[in-house]
Amino acid sequence: MSAGEFDLIARIRARAGTRADIVLGIGDDAALLAPPPGLQLVVTADTLNAGVHFPEGSAAADIGWKALAVNLSDLASMGAEPAWCTLSLSLPQPDAAWIDGFLDGFLDLAGRHGIALVGGDTTRGPLSISVTAMGLVEPGGALRRDGARVGDDVWVTGTLGDAAGGLALLSRAPADALRARLDRPTPRVEAGRALRGIATACVDVSDGLLADLGHVASRSGVGAQVDIDALPASDALMAAFDEATRVPLQASGGDDYELCFTAPADARARVDAVSSQFDLRITRIGCMVAGEGVLPVHSDGRSWSASRRGYDHFAKS
Amino acid sequence: MSAGEFDLIARIRARAGTRADIVLGIGDDAALLAPPPGLQLVVTADTLNAGVHFPEGSAAADIGWKALAVNLSDLASMGAEPAWCTLSLSLPQPDAAWIDGFLDGFLDLAGRHGIALVGGDTTRGPLSISVTAMGLVEPGGALRRDGARVGDDVWVTGTLGDAAGGLALLSRAPADALRARLDRPTPRVEAGRALRGIATACVDVSDGLLADLGHVASRSGVGAQVDIDALPASDALMAAFDEATRVPLQASGGDDYELCFTAPADARARVDAVSSQFDLRITRIGCMVAGEGVLPVHSDGRSWSASRRGYDHFAKS
Repeated sequence: MSAGEFDLIARIRARAGTRADIVLGIGDDAALLAPPPGLQLVVTADTLNAGVHFPEGSAAADIGWKALAVNLSDLASMGAEPAWCTLSLSLPQPDAAWIDGFLDGFLDLAGRHGIALVGGDTTRGPLSISVTAMGLVEPGGALRRDGARVGDDVWVTGTLGDAAGGLALLSRAPADALRARLDRPTPRVEAGRALRGIATACVDVSDGLLADLGHVASRSGVGAQVDIDALPASDALMAAFDEATRVPLQASGGDDYELCFTAPADARARVDAVSSQFDLRITRIGCMVAGEGVLPVHSDGRSWSASRRGYDHFAKS
Repeated sequence: MSAGEFDLIARIRARAGTRADIVLGIGDDAALLAPPPGLQLVVTADTLNAGVHFPEGSAAADIGWKALAVNLSDLASMGAEPAWCTLSLSLPQPDAAWIDGFLDGFLDLAGRHGIALVGGDTTRGPLSISVTAMGLVEPGGALRRDGARVGDDVWVTGTLGDAAGGLALLSRAPADALRARLDRPTPRVEAGRALRGIATACVDVSDGLLADLGHVASRSGVGAQVDIDALPASDALMAAFDEATRVPLQASGGDDYELCFTAPADARARVDAVSSQFDLRITRIGCMVAGEGVLPVHSDGRSWSASRRGYDHFAKS
């Protein structure tokens, strides 16, 4: 099935949801939005390219889900409430069936978080999806990377390494639980919102725990120590890998989209309450220390090292 | 020269400008912005792909300029004041020299219009640039596609067909004036701002005059009649093409990024004043009529036809 650019846009427009604060959605030169007064705007942009960010041959619906999920995860890590997004879609051919599948995944996730697609474009080119997501947060309420203090606990939501484990096993049909983490990551939007006023700093785990926590450390001007033995693992990951293979996936694998955050030690009960509220595992994995960088250690204090410290999209691996 | 993703982002961050309303720019999971109270947000997104939207081998600085220009043009057509933008850049290799050149063009134009780069990402993939631009406008002040009324004049800024003429002559070294229109289009931001309260509808000419005016007509529920003999041509275009070749370029060539707008007949003096204020040619080329679609006619009333009615990025041409 083939269609021109205008047809594809009409197809997208017909299915995009709306919000009360959208004055003008898809169909003009730009969207016109009426942000609620008194809030700050949180803006992030992330691109997925075929073969780099998702396996060639991924289902269109999974690609659509993930393209939005990675952006919602950035809003989550800021504690923002999702509001609007744009979608720039490059496709080798105008393929209405592919677009419909893509929208199934994209709009399913959008609906769950009340974010509306308000604009963008479709164009010819190698398969690439760029999304810009906008959210809202009260002044002073945003979770940033630069607020961690010496003595803060380091926490992480959910489990680590599943997406990297799924990717490592791709050619051998990974367990559904691992493949699902790779294809349909869960942005921790509600948890991020609930952590406002609790977390001192926050980052989403997209490039690998140690690398992303390193951004928090450097932006905050402090160091971090991580208990490698405390990193949470799913049953599926435990079943699929021995410890020597698993732990590096947890420490440095990308694409988990969990939240890694810091909070004062006297906030532990409040963190536990967030965990209970959302039935979401939240694990204390370390603490912020004087100095710089991230030091991974075993529970007994021995140092830990792994050659691979985070996923660089330009690394020659 | 080679650099990793984090290095490229640092390189971009070091050169991005700022604004007083940016609470947090590049360097966190998302940007944090404090929009001035009482204004509406105007959002647009456009992608440029190599070989589709710019010739292979274009200078990096020209690509940077154009990637922002096409988005500023959308803000211009809404009458919005540019504020912030994000940049998603896919590159085959991390090439610091290319990035520097790209930023030369992108940030040159950004500085002219006070728009600040606040986020985005760089990733590996075929050369592709996605920009989302955000602007601000007073409630009720935006120029939309759907406000044209029967009897309104149709106007266009600048000259038409230069970019398409430059593209047509690409293999034979087009005149500098044509090549410049193709590589470094001028978004009509100030004119768009000045047309608030004068224009009843507005669109930027990106896909071709007849096609873009067609969007205004259909969104407004009226028709349009265009005097093909009145379409403004530059001296360079007149010198490069005979009339039979030139007129279709003016009527249907893409990438001009002029503004086509409608206004009541009693607003002619105000349109002329905008023209004088910005030393910008603004030409009356037709009127809105009852019915639907866009009818191109000669000055003597004979109908005009051309096979090519607008540039579809998915058209098989």
